[in-house]
Amino acid sequence: MYKSLKALKENKLFEFLVISVIIISALEIGAKTFDLPESFNSGTRILDLLITVFFVFEISIRFLADEDKRSFFKNGWNIFDSLVVAISLIPTDNSELVLLARLVRIFRVLRMISIVPELRVLINSLIKALPQLGYVVLLMFIIFYIYAALGSFMFSEINPVLWGDIAISMLTLFRIMTFEDWTDILYETMEVYRFSWLFYLSFIFFTAFTFLNMVIGIVVNVMEDERNLIKAKTETSMNDLQKELQEIKQMLKKLQ
Amino acid sequence: MYKSLKALKENKLFEFLVISVIIISALEIGAKTFDLPESFNSGTRILDLLITVFFVFEISIRFLADEDKRSFFKNGWNIFDSLVVAISLIPTDNSELVLLARLVRIFRVLRMISIVPELRVLINSLIKALPQLGYVVLLMFIIFYIYAALGSFMFSEINPVLWGDIAISMLTLFRIMTFEDWTDILYETMEVYRFSWLFYLSFIFFTAFTFLNMVIGIVVNVMEDERNLIKAKTETSMNDLQKELQEIKQMLKKLQ
Amino acid sequence: MYKSLKALKENKLFEFLVISVIIISALEIGAKTFDLPESFNSGTRILDLLITVFFVFEISIRFLADEDKRSFFKNGWNIFDSLVVAISLIPTDNSELVLLARLVRIFRVLRMISIVPELRVLINSLIKALPQLGYVVLLMFIIFYIYAALGSFMFSEINPVLWGDIAISMLTLFRIMTFEDWTDILYETMEVYRFSWLFYLSFIFFTAFTFLNMVIGIVVNVMEDERNLIKAKTETSMNDLQKELQEIKQMLKKLQ
Amino acid sequence: MYKSLKALKENKLFEFLVISVIIISALEIGAKTFDLPESFNSGTRILDLLITVFFVFEISIRFLADEDKRSFFKNGWNIFDSLVVAISLIPTDNSELVLLARLVRIFRVLRMISIVPELRVLINSLIKALPQLGYVVLLMFIIFYIYAALGSFMFSEINPVLWGDIAISMLTLFRIMTFEDWTDILYETMEVYRFSWLFYLSFIFFTAFTFLNMVIGIVVNVMEDERNLIKAKTETSMNDLQKELQEIKQMLKKLQ
Repeated sequence: MYKSLKALKENKLFEFLVISVIIISALEIGAKTFDLPESFNSGTRILDLLITVFFVFEISIRFLADEDKRSFFKNGWNIFDSLVVAISLIPTDNSELVLLARLVRIFRVLRMISIVPELRVLINSLIKALPQLGYVVLLMFIIFYIYAALGSFMFSEINPVLWGDIAISMLTLFRIMTFEDWTDILYETMEVYRFSWLFYLSFIFFTAFTFLNMVIGIVVNVMEDERNLIKAKTETSMNDLQKELQEIKQMLKKLQ
Repeated sequence: MYKSLKALKENKLFEFLVISVIIISALEIGAKTFDLPESFNSGTRILDLLITVFFVFEISIRFLADEDKRSFFKNGWNIFDSLVVAISLIPTDNSELVLLARLVRIFRVLRMISIVPELRVLINSLIKALPQLGYVVLLMFIIFYIYAALGSFMFSEINPVLWGDIAISMLTLFRIMTFEDWTDILYETMEVYRFSWLFYLSFIFFTAFTFLNMVIGIVVNVMEDERNLIKAKTETSMNDLQKELQEIKQMLKKLQ
Repeated sequence: MYKSLKALKENKLFEFLVISVIIISALEIGAKTFDLPESFNSGTRILDLLITVFFVFEISIRFLADEDKRSFFKNGWNIFDSLVVAISLIPTDNSELVLLARLVRIFRVLRMISIVPELRVLINSLIKALPQLGYVVLLMFIIFYIYAALGSFMFSEINPVLWGDIAISMLTLFRIMTFEDWTDILYETMEVYRFSWLFYLSFIFFTAFTFLNMVIGIVVNVMEDERNLIKAKTETSMNDLQKELQEIKQMLKKLQ
Repeated sequence: MYKSLKALKENKLFEFLVISVIIISALEIGAKTFDLPESFNSGTRILDLLITVFFVFEISIRFLADEDKRSFFKNGWNIFDSLVVAISLIPTDNSELVLLARLVRIFRVLRMISIVPELRVLINSLIKALPQLGYVVLLMFIIFYIYAALGSFMFSEINPVLWGDIAISMLTLFRIMTFEDWTDILYETMEVYRFSWLFYLSFIFFTAFTFLNMVIGIVVNVMEDERNLIKAKTETSMNDLQKELQEIKQMLKKLQ
């Protein structure tokens, strides 16, 4: 039985069925956002049940088909899938949980990523790139924190909605970074502090500079990987040549 | 006769004539958008007819000059050209078809791309780049879909114009991605849900991240092509060296 | 006398003097934009005269110090400098010419670029990069033209200020490309044509795609230059090795 | 005693303590921007004193633990740290100095960068990249200056708030470069000068072009570094091969 489960799990048709069910569940979520007749809503209740049952069935097969039961839960994707399915099993008659149930149903769409291998590769490569960006993000945060503190001390009385406390100021600075109506904020403070444009321009300069640094960092990283690949390739052929030369030397030694 | 047609088709002067007619047809379209005297409109009717006749004549020559008649319609550019010309032959006295006739006339400008070889190369390279972006686009769509569903569930009562259903929500999210007045939307929902900035910032982060990933993917692809070119080049010279070494060995063997 | 002129032209101090005069002339232009007392204005009249005399003097020296008088005017920078100086000699008592005189004075600041060699290199490299972008710009123009024609036909009655004729439509499309309040335009036309978002989104997609293609093109170009440099380098050392191997063969032949 | 100080300075626990104090000082600054009860304010006074004492203590240890006392102040980071600590020692009972005291306290957060080595590396690499951007920045400034002078001469009467003098015009141009409500400015001047779109579009084109040039410059720089690394690597192996060939030749010579 174990083998047949594994065969089923790896079956292309089965995979196609799982993807179809995820798409149907996604379409159901989308359809619910439109104003629809009551009959549709009762229909989705049944559909929901069917999808939940299918997901329980599918995750069970995947679990049973795994050779090493313990390693199953070491895979982040499996944990994610199991969690999503487990939460959708919670009965949601309680009105407070209706929102949660809805949220879980939405996150079921994320299972698309765990099913399609190419998307998994994409996400994994994104996660792998995160740590090297860590210190740039930290630097960015320090810049934001300092400017938010400065902005909050100087401008909080001019416009408390934008500069009331350090948290709101950071949101305002993010808005300035996206250039979204940033001159309105600038002109407002320039009426009180004539040189406050220095605050904004230096902030834009520093964040742009840090961002530029991040992009360069990524390009350099990509280049380094390439260089290592080229190096490995040429090194092998160089070693081949050297070996040949050693043989020639050996032959010459015999001649002497 | 076949040869003379081919010579005509490849004639630089003929090509120049075709380009001129396309430009004239483009200028006519542009001129029509201005308020012009009635006399001009009757003039364009004759011009339109002349351009259509010329295009029929030109596409016929290109078809007749092609050695393999079947392969003519296997070329996407030829199909495109023929379709545009064919549709412009439909009589448009019927008032409902006037809009269609206008649209076809506009698309005639696209023939510029199929005539100028450099533009064809450009478009072909763009189309070739599309599939490798496929999965990134799919990931982007999943992110949009999930956030649109979330936004629609949470914010539809705050502002139904922006978050009414999942389709409108996706348009709103695209607007947020372009940073177009996105803080207006943010401040509106923050009055109800204080932590809704998390929704927007995480969305901006995820889309920016996916976009960054796409750019890196393209750079890596370009680098890979370069590496293969370098590898091919060094491999040949390495092989040359190895051959020489083999010959030296052979000579040494004879000496022994 | 000729030699002393050339020595003067290449003198570091003289170059420094020229740059100083350009900076003074730039500062004068800047100062004039502020509201200043009348005494200042009469002062600038004298300063203007002095600067003009100095520039005539300087360009004469550069012309006289040039070995080949004909090649002097083959250099684009020299033509530019001479033109700017020549126009500033036109008497501007005539009130209509005052604006022209002002413009010429502003363009005198551009002489900074022709004096500082590093800036000249920068501009030259920019001009050199232009032709390879030519076809991308042409493609961009075709996209703009077609969408402007479409927009003008469909939306001119909805908002003639934005879509009145093809010229205004192209400006509106450029505005949309910069994402500047583009959703206002979108929502306005969506009230009449429900699916007009397709028009905007496809336009943004095509222009972004063409832009991306341009960036890739530039990166590929840079890479190609690098590859050729690497290739040239390795080829020389490969040739050196091959020469050595030939010598060894020759020696072996003598042995036989 | 000297050795124990150095050991303390390099102690991981001590470093962790310093970072903690900086974070506490940062949190204190952030907390102060919120409306808090009076009791908290008196609490921060004591905390402030403690932090200042700790920083004096820490900088003293770092100074005493340095082998070469003179080189201590040659390090920019040390000067920065000492200055920040020195200024926070100034008594701030005087109400005019309260703002300064606040500013210094904010800049204490910057000490985070001088403590965490990875952030120092990041900042150093950013500073190292600045000079190569110098001439691009100069070119950008010249473009801004000329357009600001032009804009000020032509548009100052249309809207003195935006184009009043050359300084305000440069700020307006920066706003246009960030595409922030730039069409409002455009439409306003187009009512008087119909062709003023040429002014804006050419400005956007020139700045974008200069920016593009900067990016290419950075990419080329990164590539150059890579090429040198590859070159160095292949050169060594090429030299190895050449040495071997020389030895073979020597052996052959002995045979003759």
